[in-house]
Amino acid sequence: MSMSDPLADMLTRIRNAVMVKYDTVRMPKSNIKVNVAKVLEDEGYIVGYQVSDEGPQGTLTINLKYGPNGEPVITGLKRVSKPGLRQYAKAGDVPTVMNGLGVAIVSTSKGIITDRAARKLNTGGEILCQVW
Amino acid sequence: MSMSDPLADMLTRIRNAVMVKYDTVRMPKSNIKVNVAKVLEDEGYIVGYQVSDEGPQGTLTINLKYGPNGEPVITGLKRVSKPGLRQYAKAGDVPTVMNGLGVAIVSTSKGIITDRAARKLNTGGEILCQVW
Repeated sequence: MSMSDPLADMLTRIRNAVMVKYDTVRMPKSNIKVNVAKVLEDEGYIVGYQVSDEGPQGTLTINLKYGPNGEPVITGLKRVSKPGLRQYAKAGDVPTVMNGLGVAIVSTSKGIITDRAARKLNTGGEILCQVW
Repeated sequence: MSMSDPLADMLTRIRNAVMVKYDTVRMPKSNIKVNVAKVLEDEGYIVGYQVSDEGPQGTLTINLKYGPNGEPVITGLKRVSKPGLRQYAKAGDVPTVMNGLGVAIVSTSKGIITDRAARKLNTGGEILCQVW
């Protein structure tokens, strides 16, 4: 969970922040984290995100989303591929998450996209994480 | 300049906003506009940007950047490829902008990237716009 795995760090920060109902969570920026935030926004899991040049490597701020009764829209986040054990799926072989109720975020040659988009584009890649 | 060319609209909004020294400029969100904002931030032309789900198609807000004497960091923006006349460059053939003082933003199969990155990755694509 150390900075040897910045994406795991991102998921942990989000997990902790929604648990205590924070509106926003901040972290050092990286390309992959910004692309994951973009997918989370496109898929409706977060209200939005900000990218700024504050701090030594820039800052990514995520605006978390809650339902009408204050329940977090993100109920779970799981790192799949890990620096020590990469997890890939071939084209046509990218699995769904909980029968399509969640999404997998996949790093492909066409960018960082959902499992659904990967199947549509018939491309495989590294399964970065799952969100539901 | 109408919404038949949302990217031209984005460039116009930025051009007008820096002329009157606004800190931020807002516009309807689209995938391509968010990717262009990302390049502008990576290249140091803007302070940052925000993506949110406000409004019918979401909102992109750009935080504009000024030098120590209030001079805009972006001094020029030009649409290159247009809906009526697309402009493409082959791999190895992506031109520099003002001898490398500016950047071209290129839509490639590896995503929306700078002319420099396109040459490095030896890929071609559609020359969306130039910034300097």
